[in-house]
Amino acid sequence: MNNRVAIIMGSDSDLPVMKNTIKRLKDWDIPFETHVMSAHRTPERACEFARTAKDNGFAVIIAAAGKAAHLAGVLAGHTTLPVIGVPIKSSTMDGLDSLLSTVQMPSGIPVATVAIDGADNAAILATQILAISDKSLAEKLEQFKKDMVAGVIKKDAALQTQIENL
Amino acid sequence: MNNRVAIIMGSDSDLPVMKNTIKRLKDWDIPFETHVMSAHRTPERACEFARTAKDNGFAVIIAAAGKAAHLAGVLAGHTTLPVIGVPIKSSTMDGLDSLLSTVQMPSGIPVATVAIDGADNAAILATQILAISDKSLAEKLEQFKKDMVAGVIKKDAALQTQIENL
Amino acid sequence: MNNRVAIIMGSDSDLPVMKNTIKRLKDWDIPFETHVMSAHRTPERACEFARTAKDNGFAVIIAAAGKAAHLAGVLAGHTTLPVIGVPIKSSTMDGLDSLLSTVQMPSGIPVATVAIDGADNAAILATQILAISDKSLAEKLEQFKKDMVAGVIKKDAALQTQIENL
Amino acid sequence: MNNRVAIIMGSDSDLPVMKNTIKRLKDWDIPFETHVMSAHRTPERACEFARTAKDNGFAVIIAAAGKAAHLAGVLAGHTTLPVIGVPIKSSTMDGLDSLLSTVQMPSGIPVATVAIDGADNAAILATQILAISDKSLAEKLEQFKKDMVAGVIKKDAALQTQIENL
Amino acid sequence: MNNRVAIIMGSDSDLPVMKNTIKRLKDWDIPFETHVMSAHRTPERACEFARTAKDNGFAVIIAAAGKAAHLAGVLAGHTTLPVIGVPIKSSTMDGLDSLLSTVQMPSGIPVATVAIDGADNAAILATQILAISDKSLAEKLEQFKKDMVAGVIKKDAALQTQIENL
Amino acid sequence: MNNRVAIIMGSDSDLPVMKNTIKRLKDWDIPFETHVMSAHRTPERACEFARTAKDNGFAVIIAAAGKAAHLAGVLAGHTTLPVIGVPIKSSTMDGLDSLLSTVQMPSGIPVATVAIDGADNAAILATQILAISDKSLAEKLEQFKKDMVAGVIKKDAALQTQIENL
Amino acid sequence: MNNRVAIIMGSDSDLPVMKNTIKRLKDWDIPFETHVMSAHRTPERACEFARTAKDNGFAVIIAAAGKAAHLAGVLAGHTTLPVIGVPIKSSTMDGLDSLLSTVQMPSGIPVATVAIDGADNAAILATQILAISDKSLAEKLEQFKKDMVAGVIKKDAALQTQIENL
Amino acid sequence: MNNRVAIIMGSDSDLPVMKNTIKRLKDWDIPFETHVMSAHRTPERACEFARTAKDNGFAVIIAAAGKAAHLAGVLAGHTTLPVIGVPIKSSTMDGLDSLLSTVQMPSGIPVATVAIDGADNAAILATQILAISDKSLAEKLEQFKKDMVAGVIKKDAALQTQIENL
Repeated sequence: MNNRVAIIMGSDSDLPVMKNTIKRLKDWDIPFETHVMSAHRTPERACEFARTAKDNGFAVIIAAAGKAAHLAGVLAGHTTLPVIGVPIKSSTMDGLDSLLSTVQMPSGIPVATVAIDGADNAAILATQILAISDKSLAEKLEQFKKDMVAGVIKKDAALQTQIENL
Repeated sequence: MNNRVAIIMGSDSDLPVMKNTIKRLKDWDIPFETHVMSAHRTPERACEFARTAKDNGFAVIIAAAGKAAHLAGVLAGHTTLPVIGVPIKSSTMDGLDSLLSTVQMPSGIPVATVAIDGADNAAILATQILAISDKSLAEKLEQFKKDMVAGVIKKDAALQTQIENL
Repeated sequence: MNNRVAIIMGSDSDLPVMKNTIKRLKDWDIPFETHVMSAHRTPERACEFARTAKDNGFAVIIAAAGKAAHLAGVLAGHTTLPVIGVPIKSSTMDGLDSLLSTVQMPSGIPVATVAIDGADNAAILATQILAISDKSLAEKLEQFKKDMVAGVIKKDAALQTQIENL
Repeated sequence: MNNRVAIIMGSDSDLPVMKNTIKRLKDWDIPFETHVMSAHRTPERACEFARTAKDNGFAVIIAAAGKAAHLAGVLAGHTTLPVIGVPIKSSTMDGLDSLLSTVQMPSGIPVATVAIDGADNAAILATQILAISDKSLAEKLEQFKKDMVAGVIKKDAALQTQIENL
Repeated sequence: MNNRVAIIMGSDSDLPVMKNTIKRLKDWDIPFETHVMSAHRTPERACEFARTAKDNGFAVIIAAAGKAAHLAGVLAGHTTLPVIGVPIKSSTMDGLDSLLSTVQMPSGIPVATVAIDGADNAAILATQILAISDKSLAEKLEQFKKDMVAGVIKKDAALQTQIENL
Repeated sequence: MNNRVAIIMGSDSDLPVMKNTIKRLKDWDIPFETHVMSAHRTPERACEFARTAKDNGFAVIIAAAGKAAHLAGVLAGHTTLPVIGVPIKSSTMDGLDSLLSTVQMPSGIPVATVAIDGADNAAILATQILAISDKSLAEKLEQFKKDMVAGVIKKDAALQTQIENL
Repeated sequence: MNNRVAIIMGSDSDLPVMKNTIKRLKDWDIPFETHVMSAHRTPERACEFARTAKDNGFAVIIAAAGKAAHLAGVLAGHTTLPVIGVPIKSSTMDGLDSLLSTVQMPSGIPVATVAIDGADNAAILATQILAISDKSLAEKLEQFKKDMVAGVIKKDAALQTQIENL
Repeated sequence: MNNRVAIIMGSDSDLPVMKNTIKRLKDWDIPFETHVMSAHRTPERACEFARTAKDNGFAVIIAAAGKAAHLAGVLAGHTTLPVIGVPIKSSTMDGLDSLLSTVQMPSGIPVATVAIDGADNAAILATQILAISDKSLAEKLEQFKKDMVAGVIKKDAALQTQIENL
């Protein structure tokens, strides 16, 4: 199957955040594969995955890691596919270490970085990328944007009664 | 012409950095259009551009801005195309304000953020995105990766003589 | 009704903080209107609100948002009314992202930024602005300052007994 | 003369930045008065100025200071007028110390903080505040916004020829 | 009574931290006076206190405040006594705002800053200052240093059994 | 001679900053002694100096160091004299490393920290400490405060003509 | 016994973190000794320990401390053995103060710094150092690396069932 | 030849800093090999180097990189040798990105991190590690420490005349 999304986590402790990526892709019926692979603990498996990802039918790689978050950058070094990085907040430094380690890539090897713990946005960005050549995904994104508008309008209406009681 | 790249700068003072995006796209014969548009000074032109970008044949938007860098996020609010954000370093805060303003987007509206002043990487990321459905671009990226390897090997060789003289 | 205050929140999750703005304006009988509107999720509604705010009788806009907090700046791009920004602390970065995204506005479009989660101060600042041409509000502010003095003096007296028991 | 703007600098070394406030107010024929007064070196003069500012016909106070920038907050403690704070970048800490010292005011005493070195925006914000009850200022602000749009459009046009030569 | 220590808190919410200053001074029989006074809410009382502190028999002032922590600096502006600043950690910014607001004083008006929430150290520093001309205090400090050594040696001994059970 | 001030620098490269401490003490005829001693390079000399400082007639120690600035804290571990720390800005981190290394001392061993590169304030703080038991120094400090007021008033007068020409 | 590892903690409150160092060394049968010694509270004991460490059969020193974490640097000043520093996260500043105080050592006296609270890595680094001249340790490290690979592969397998249920 | 030191730079632009590592090792006659290899541009060469380093007679690897500095961590993932990381300051973020990317390694794969641009200390640390089983290196380190003491004492003497002329 082509144009699949790969979701690679540096540790299974990233799952509580990254399940938001998985849920979004499931919701939109986008084929994906998920793995725990570490740039440091299983570097060879991770590199091998990246090197063969394109030939194996992947179109986008999403990589999530915390602390000195090298995973997205290392995968990007082994593939020409777009790599989306999700900096995971860990127990110290409030995610700043993960963010800088993911986003501050040297010239030649970009990582498309989303917000700290921005797992849902990683899935949406992957979908936007796939939607360039997939009309049905583009329609899902259009609908999603309309739903967001409707959702905010509904919350705005609800707010009017909430503030009465303040 | 389809699958063009839009390069939007918040200010013409961003050109010294963003010319690296332009040069890279020129080098690789990727059609693009460049504009100065500000999320704050010309919000209506900027929003109108984003709203119509897809219908006007753009596939990816690259947005560069400094300080409270809202441009990428605002454009992303008006389109379902992938938006790449380039945080520009300004005279204070060493680019941290631009980076956080660009990358820390709320759920639903991702911005694919590259490094501070990462203009070249923005072009490469846009190319990686387009290359998913464009074999000739994919080949250019493969060649580019090989050239990088050759470049580093050459520098490694040069280093051996340099260190003799230290 | 003229010289109303608009309170715009980027998300209804900002209400626990922003209720302090609402309570203060209620206490001082200052007419206001509150909305959930997002610079990213409902950009057109937000921009339309800002563009028509002056004609609709608003004198000051208070905008609260977290993370890449573009709301205040985006509204300021569409109006000549003074816009007060309240950076909301979110789950990462301790509010630094919200603060820098709100305050570091480029030349031409100021945002009057108060402290992180400074919802009460946003209301007081709006009142100070309105009080320039409204004597009754100026008197309320004078009284408020006197009450603060009395409050601190009372706490100072209470402290004297508290420290006996340490 | 009423509704004057006071510009208070903590040091005359702030003038290279703060002349942008002065120029803007001069351009728009807004009456103002400028003083060097320090929260630490001349606290009594500073406090006396703030205490009597309203009776002396001032409507807004702009205060600029660097490092542990207490000036805006201290003036705000002595007046019910709106106080605009301009954090000045000094030789260390890239302005972060000035920003946090100015903006992080406790509940009850707001300071309307603009960007680090945001002297022009301080003048524009003061004008926006005065314009609530002054139609001619409101018109100047409308014109200024139009001029900004025209300025950006012109730069956008110029960019098209600049990029040809890259 | 001469050579008293003044402990000034910006808010009674600082007491849980500052009780460590009070306890230490009580333990060492150093006369002190404690007040809640705010640089912003009761500026005149605070300034008056500082101006008369020396004549009222105080030798050292300890000032504790959070956020935009101006209290220590403002008091220092009104006295030639040494002022010790205790930056209090508040709900955002992890105390960095308080620290920078307290320590980054301009030339001419020093504040002797201790660690964030360093209330005990403020008392010890005040005692070190008083001990220069008070032999009994100097002896208490010598004894305190010896007790610290003994305390650490005891903990080192205890550690040896603790690690057996790991 | 008693009540001397010791000025200890971690490196002779600190002299361009620390000459401001020396000049101030010379101006006020306060006896002092200056040394280059390093907590890391000459730890034994540094510790020996601190251990014997009180018996050798010193009343206050001023310690200046950059980067991982341990000097002030290490000296404080060996003496009961008050130790004033001057964090020196080095080539990276804008002085934040020096500041945190100097000020964040654990309970029991305070360092009276002044601003980054705050060499003049270190001398003034030392003088304030000595002035508690030295009337002539107290008078110098009073005069200094008056001179600062006069200086600012003079600058304020000069400003009035400067702004005419803007 | 030779080639022992010394584990020095600045406070017994560091034990909950540092027990991970101890456990790892126990697991690998590496002889070690643990002490509570403070650069500030028991400087002489700490310095004496470092000065005699090599002669007492130690090959590596691991030093853990929080806040203004001088311990590792001070020990390094008294020995030519490699010193590994573990910055301990304390109640403020999220460990940034400890990290900078430990790692930013001046030229001449390195500290081999691991991550904030990186106690396990400190033990592994010490083992890597000892393994250069100890084949049995080198084999343990090879086995450890293999076990990590196996552990991640197992977690990757487990993930496949976990995501089914999302 | 055994127990060689490998010096790996992510870019030849790191040479102006890293020549201090090279000079130190040359001075002390420690055999070394230097290469430009990038974790991102030539990942396979870098990983291959690390995987075979031990068998090729290397005992320690020094890795220098800037921005999202993954090099040291990636090499550490492929070897059981101790890896020393030198964070290189780049044009933005003052080296904080390099430092956090290098030091904040996850459990299992330590990097012995020295100061930002701490190239000389990397060489000294490597020497300390080798000196554990090499008496002649241990003697060089002892001599180096003595020379540092002598150097500081000389500077202290020079200072005495310098301050006369201030």
